[in-house]
Amino acid sequence: MVVQPLSNRCPGLWKMLTVAVCVALVGCLQAQELRGHVSIILLGATGDLAKKYLWQGLFQLYLDEVGKDHSFSFHGAALTAPERGRELMAKALESLSCPGDMAPSHCAELKDQFLRLSQYRQLKTAEDYRTLSKDIEAQLRQEDLREAGRIFYFSVPPFAYADIARSINSSCRPGPGAWLRVVFEKPFGHDHLSAQQLATELGSFFQEEEMYRVDHYLGKQAVAQILPFRDQNRRALDGLWNRHHVERVEIIMKETVDAEGRISFYEEYGVIRDILQNHLTEILTLVAMELPLNVSSSAAVLQHKLQTFRSLRGLHKGSAVMGQYQAYSSQARRELQKPEGFYSLTPTFAGVLVHVDNLRWEGVPFTLVSGKALDERVGYVRVLFKNQAFCVQHERHWAPEQSPCLPRQIIFHIGHGELGHPAVLVSRNLFRPSLPAHSWTEVQGRPGLQVFGRPLSDFYAYSPVRERDAYSILLSHIFHGRKESFITTENLLASWIFWTPLLDSLAHEVPRLYPGGADTGSLLDLEFNGGHLSFSQHQPEQLFPRPGLALKPSDFQVLGARYRESPLVSAWPEELISRLASDIEATALQAVRRFGKFHLALSGGSSPIALFQQLATGHYGFPWAHTHLWLVDERCVPLSDPDSNFQGLQAHLLQHVRVPYYNIHPMPVHLRQRLCAEEDQGAQTYAREISALVANSSFDLVLLGMGTDGHTASLFPQSPAGLDGEQLVVLTHSPLRPHQRMSLSLPLINRAKKVAVLVMGRTKREITMLVSRVGHEPKKWPISGVLPSSGQLVWYMDYEAFLG
Amino acid sequence: MVVQPLSNRCPGLWKMLTVAVCVALVGCLQAQELRGHVSIILLGATGDLAKKYLWQGLFQLYLDEVGKDHSFSFHGAALTAPERGRELMAKALESLSCPGDMAPSHCAELKDQFLRLSQYRQLKTAEDYRTLSKDIEAQLRQEDLREAGRIFYFSVPPFAYADIARSINSSCRPGPGAWLRVVFEKPFGHDHLSAQQLATELGSFFQEEEMYRVDHYLGKQAVAQILPFRDQNRRALDGLWNRHHVERVEIIMKETVDAEGRISFYEEYGVIRDILQNHLTEILTLVAMELPLNVSSSAAVLQHKLQTFRSLRGLHKGSAVMGQYQAYSSQARRELQKPEGFYSLTPTFAGVLVHVDNLRWEGVPFTLVSGKALDERVGYVRVLFKNQAFCVQHERHWAPEQSPCLPRQIIFHIGHGELGHPAVLVSRNLFRPSLPAHSWTEVQGRPGLQVFGRPLSDFYAYSPVRERDAYSILLSHIFHGRKESFITTENLLASWIFWTPLLDSLAHEVPRLYPGGADTGSLLDLEFNGGHLSFSQHQPEQLFPRPGLALKPSDFQVLGARYRESPLVSAWPEELISRLASDIEATALQAVRRFGKFHLALSGGSSPIALFQQLATGHYGFPWAHTHLWLVDERCVPLSDPDSNFQGLQAHLLQHVRVPYYNIHPMPVHLRQRLCAEEDQGAQTYAREISALVANSSFDLVLLGMGTDGHTASLFPQSPAGLDGEQLVVLTHSPLRPHQRMSLSLPLINRAKKVAVLVMGRTKREITMLVSRVGHEPKKWPISGVLPSSGQLVWYMDYEAFLG
Repeated sequence: MVVQPLSNRCPGLWKMLTVAVCVALVGCLQAQELRGHVSIILLGATGDLAKKYLWQGLFQLYLDEVGKDHSFSFHGAALTAPERGRELMAKALESLSCPGDMAPSHCAELKDQFLRLSQYRQLKTAEDYRTLSKDIEAQLRQEDLREAGRIFYFSVPPFAYADIARSINSSCRPGPGAWLRVVFEKPFGHDHLSAQQLATELGSFFQEEEMYRVDHYLGKQAVAQILPFRDQNRRALDGLWNRHHVERVEIIMKETVDAEGRISFYEEYGVIRDILQNHLTEILTLVAMELPLNVSSSAAVLQHKLQTFRSLRGLHKGSAVMGQYQAYSSQARRELQKPEGFYSLTPTFAGVLVHVDNLRWEGVPFTLVSGKALDERVGYVRVLFKNQAFCVQHERHWAPEQSPCLPRQIIFHIGHGELGHPAVLVSRNLFRPSLPAHSWTEVQGRPGLQVFGRPLSDFYAYSPVRERDAYSILLSHIFHGRKESFITTENLLASWIFWTPLLDSLAHEVPRLYPGGADTGSLLDLEFNGGHLSFSQHQPEQLFPRPGLALKPSDFQVLGARYRESPLVSAWPEELISRLASDIEATALQAVRRFGKFHLALSGGSSPIALFQQLATGHYGFPWAHTHLWLVDERCVPLSDPDSNFQGLQAHLLQHVRVPYYNIHPMPVHLRQRLCAEEDQGAQTYAREISALVANSSFDLVLLGMGTDGHTASLFPQSPAGLDGEQLVVLTHSPLRPHQRMSLSLPLINRAKKVAVLVMGRTKREITMLVSRVGHEPKKWPISGVLPSSGQLVWYMDYEAFLG
Repeated sequence: MVVQPLSNRCPGLWKMLTVAVCVALVGCLQAQELRGHVSIILLGATGDLAKKYLWQGLFQLYLDEVGKDHSFSFHGAALTAPERGRELMAKALESLSCPGDMAPSHCAELKDQFLRLSQYRQLKTAEDYRTLSKDIEAQLRQEDLREAGRIFYFSVPPFAYADIARSINSSCRPGPGAWLRVVFEKPFGHDHLSAQQLATELGSFFQEEEMYRVDHYLGKQAVAQILPFRDQNRRALDGLWNRHHVERVEIIMKETVDAEGRISFYEEYGVIRDILQNHLTEILTLVAMELPLNVSSSAAVLQHKLQTFRSLRGLHKGSAVMGQYQAYSSQARRELQKPEGFYSLTPTFAGVLVHVDNLRWEGVPFTLVSGKALDERVGYVRVLFKNQAFCVQHERHWAPEQSPCLPRQIIFHIGHGELGHPAVLVSRNLFRPSLPAHSWTEVQGRPGLQVFGRPLSDFYAYSPVRERDAYSILLSHIFHGRKESFITTENLLASWIFWTPLLDSLAHEVPRLYPGGADTGSLLDLEFNGGHLSFSQHQPEQLFPRPGLALKPSDFQVLGARYRESPLVSAWPEELISRLASDIEATALQAVRRFGKFHLALSGGSSPIALFQQLATGHYGFPWAHTHLWLVDERCVPLSDPDSNFQGLQAHLLQHVRVPYYNIHPMPVHLRQRLCAEEDQGAQTYAREISALVANSSFDLVLLGMGTDGHTASLFPQSPAGLDGEQLVVLTHSPLRPHQRMSLSLPLINRAKKVAVLVMGRTKREITMLVSRVGHEPKKWPISGVLPSSGQLVWYMDYEAFLG
């Protein structure tokens, strides 16, 4: 038979009687219908987390479930020998408490029952696990119980995972028909590679559906409310939850405590791995994901989360700022026994700017901030809406609270702060939200309280009827097999794929020091600008030296320099790209003024990507509507192939500017479903198109690169075609895959009015040096054949390519 | 010789001596160097404008120029007979005043001189103008003066322009070598057509360079400062003045007075023609234009203004809201002697949302607002910047004034309001602006004064050293031939082209009534949303009846209706488009889920434009990256031709969404520089492309329209091709230009999985009725041949097409 949940079975009673009476009553009625027995094994039963949250959570689970469909036994386990272990565990269990509305006598009774069901057990060897399993089986036989399942909660350091997992898998699985659930606590790896190794290892012992990775933020009531809130307020949010209405999203976790006492852990991880990669990222996906039709389907939620990860714009050094409270390094020296000269680079504060590059969120900044030793403890997600109203009358005539010109925001207040408890706040000039009435209730007015710059009375404010600890919620979800509150392997790896490049790029960066507490002032204030995040105050004096002396731009002054007898522009990469972009824009404007259009031929590869991005975001006056874009060379792959040069151009430039479709001229490498077949005459077709549209076949600007072998365009050393002769466009052969290429020929390139050669990076140092000395030898070094017959040649080299 | 301006010639003196002494001194030195004589003829010399501003402006001009290079005579002219005219003019001249820093005795002297040079003259007939000219010539001879030029200031109603212009042109032009300048006051027409007629008429009498159209706002000091400010603060503004940083621009002109006493004029024009089409639009162009290298080159400024007009997104009914103060209609009845039942539809308040669709401003709302009988008199331009900072610490730790989290704005304060004078304000957390030190000075602090929501001390605030009236500035510019402060014909017509469609669409709309003054409360507050502007409060009870009874959507309930035995969706246009867009999205999502891609074939024409816009702005979940776009038909014109169907698709859809280049399939109507040549096999090429990419050549969705002759796609009645047979794509012949077309054939259309036919507008009523009754007769009515063999057909018709 289908056993209905308690609240359905005695709804009248439910309201009238105390929980205890109802439970007892149902207990009698249902005793013989118990679905089976559940064994819960808490590994690391005497550790901090267990003491602080897990035992209480298990007790809460027992209180919630006692007398329903299952019976329980609780096994506290650790490496400690039995006697000492029992002692420690008893201590941990002393402080178990019942909900405030339960009669003390009843509480004492239930606590007694719980303690009787709980026992300590040393789990050290594989043999210990076999014994545990046998004991469970014996108990089941003895009490004539059907086994429902086993939960193993890994509250142990990750290095212990593998051995335990192996033992459980080999000798501690429940019998047929019963389920196994294993629960892990972060850290889940240190970066993508280590996370993947750990996942692979665990995956060799457990099925994906057996594993529950805890991110306890997903158990926090305000966080757990994000999807249900979006779901229940679909109508109101439908038109609002997008880039047209949202100005910004802030996902914030501020702490006042510092890392003292935990530095051996913290020094390994830092704030990004500790808070941003997991907690704040999970919240980000809940806010940003496309809303599934059924928000309680864990498969649908997971799928939409993964979709969101795929939409995240890659992070780079400029996406983040880092800080470290001033006392950290001395604390680290003390706790880690480091010498006097030791300085840590571990960030205790980070701000990261995330962009979600889809149609819904494009351009909306998601700011993730967390830090220790700040001025207040508070966690929240704040969605600030654009002010899209104009109030005609003077401010003094505005309708209080309701004016459309007052700020409009939705806040999921996770906890602490001035409000002091979890809450969902919606500005009154937005809409009256719907929240589940049985579990959320309107906050009573607190005169004078300001939150997020406005009086509390400006908001519809709701808080949970009963505040519940995240772990007790998550343990209940584990027990009920609700996987949507846990981190699947795919989800975990997607997050690490997102964060690892940033972590790598920041590994040697020096964080800004801050005094901590209120003294920090505005030292950590952030500004974002075109995808970059920076501190809004200039760097104050650093209190510790930079490791190694980096070269500064002022160390190089290469004004009016020349390379191969042509002008040379040399600078640090960012400056160089910015200068090249400006020069291209100036050339474009001049061409459009004079001829009404601008013919630009672009190379593929990685160097131009930064240039494309700069052109896309920094040059509003660029005459894109009158610009024709041509390709210098192309790989013989379909245009939609990620390897195609055109694909890079499309992703980094065309998606962001408005070039008319018919001004875009990809190379016809893919005709009649074939790639670069001679008989399809792609090269000739492209040459004809150039001749028809570009006066004298003379491009206004050709952008080239230079390979480490001296190749340029797709003209490689010893190429049989394209280095001289009549052909404008040629098929060539590259030593690298894909071998087949299409390329403009040197004679065509040399007809251009202007040729810019962009060379960047240390790997180009040798060829740069070599080519500076050779004459006109295109057969050996095709780049040496670039010499516009009547146009201008300019070299753009960064210091690394030029000076090594 | 080149005569330097006075200030250059005696800079020391200029500072040390009073103006009067310097003028007198230079007057002696330069008497014989006078460049010539200028005659200024003020037509309408006894009218309101002349009394209020023009005579004072002319006196100021005299004060500024006396003793420099020219001598003057001032002719006040009107239709009034000489004696009475002289009396009226004498009265108008009584109140002339000198700048505050001029000695009263000197002022009296100069005023005396000015009065001696001014005389009244009746100008009524052509003969009068001939006499005027002769008199001027006689005076020149008599006093042995060289003629420098003549200024005719038309301070008369526009209906009088033509006669006066004819007379001036035929008999009152100055002699050879001297210039003619004619000055016009608005209104310059009532809409594009009338403005063009007026311009053509005036153009038959005067050269463009002879005409000075006054928009006196361009003479207001804060407005005149916009371009110089942008120029002098280029460095600071370079990165800020764009959509990435500007949140909104407000261009506001609020009045407390109403239209009483001027209703015969006002009733003809209303607030949009009176204020928005001219003053606020001019300001808009100054704010939005790309900054010319030389902001004092009138040619460059004009060119950039025109460029800005071309970037403006077209206005439609939804771009504007209108109001009328409650007393207006009764005032109108009184002043215009209208019967009791008369209600005027003339707006006295308007808010208009303008979008500038270029890379710099895309998405930034420009709000233009003006109205009478409001709560305060004030005019300003406010550029509000996005808050792109996040302040980590609690608000109480923010740095006062300088925090990056406080609002950041730049305001050109035209006048009045709480500030009470012209000013330029820049938030201190933005940058310290540079203003011309000789003419602008920092405003003294006024404790307690709040402007734009912040204390005045939050701003760098500058005001003019000397407040000057707009007319005196403009008269000086006319005298010096500085055309950049005036409205050229091109500029005027561009503005009317922009405004006329909106004015037409609003002609029969009922404005919202408002009580006026502070009582108006938030009745006129505006909200903008995806290109639409609306009042943020729901319509209160209207105090006068709507003219005629419009049908309401609830009058039609056509649920589950069918048309030609297929499902019919029928609704008001907006609702219909919204429904169709949702249906297309649902189909797309399903197709992508099942097959990984979505093949959509779209028709051209005007009806789909609203659909494209809806899809572009309202559907974030649309799987564009997996959508292939095909054309149903195409005109044989180059793809870039405005007539091309592809061009409409590009402008209204492709520019706004991210469809990969290689998923876009325009019809190959333009091959080898020829249009639809049979031998280029364009139709066959397209058919091959379809066969290669679309499984079974069965599109997921084909969107069709229906012509008034029953054509669909480009398949016209009696078409010899495309109605049956094997061909997938055909060349056809349209009865309308351009005759040559390419079209999908009926057999191909009928292979689609889904076909949607969109029919909108009253003109389709007859064919809708007819086609509802005919059978399968594609030769007569091609649309009747649309019957997907295994797919689904749905009709989308608006009420006008369906019910007439």
